[in-house]
Amino acid sequence: MNALLIVAHGSRRSQSNDEVAALADTIREKCSEEYPIVQAGFLELAEPSIPDGITNCINDGASHVTVLPYFLNSGRHVVEDVPEMLEQARSQHPDAEITLAQHLGASSMMIDLVISLAKSAS
Amino acid sequence: MNALLIVAHGSRRSQSNDEVAALADTIREKCSEEYPIVQAGFLELAEPSIPDGITNCINDGASHVTVLPYFLNSGRHVVEDVPEMLEQARSQHPDAEITLAQHLGASSMMIDLVISLAKSAS
Repeated sequence: MNALLIVAHGSRRSQSNDEVAALADTIREKCSEEYPIVQAGFLELAEPSIPDGITNCINDGASHVTVLPYFLNSGRHVVEDVPEMLEQARSQHPDAEITLAQHLGASSMMIDLVISLAKSAS
Repeated sequence: MNALLIVAHGSRRSQSNDEVAALADTIREKCSEEYPIVQAGFLELAEPSIPDGITNCINDGASHVTVLPYFLNSGRHVVEDVPEMLEQARSQHPDAEITLAQHLGASSMMIDLVISLAKSAS
């Protein structure tokens, strides 16, 4: 069973964290056949942490967890922190497949998304 | 003439700011007919500021500037700071049309973008 863990930085503003959780809920509803489990995880300042999020997915029955960094820029968090957490999770869960997706800002679809928002406003 | 100003928070890491500027360059190349002017602006920590970015677009000949917040969450910056800067810019440039687009995280395309990145990794 596939799980998708959307990992964000985490904020002191609960509303920001709730928005990430709401996105996870929407994606689960829309893609439940492909990803029966879709959860949010946070690098800091909010729960669950990224390692806990991965463990939760596996405890819920996931054999494959795709971790997607919900970050716009390829900063230290994306380049170092999240990959290190995945390495630790892989050694904790040797029977599960744990895959790191590209961060949000790396998507070529971002251009179309920006243009679409700009046109809607014009 | 239409201009698109993509406004990000700004970072102490120049690479993060450069990524936003590179996105602006790519969009200008791809949409030069619709948006002959596409620039990046920053709330803080990087140049140009949002007011300077708007002024630059107008000085370059724009009669309509669409300002697009390159933010994932609807935090204070999106809800208060950027709109306040636009109000000030409107009173500074009464002859220009200055429009605020929805912030990035509000796009319904975000779901498809996340799914696309997840599938590419799986």
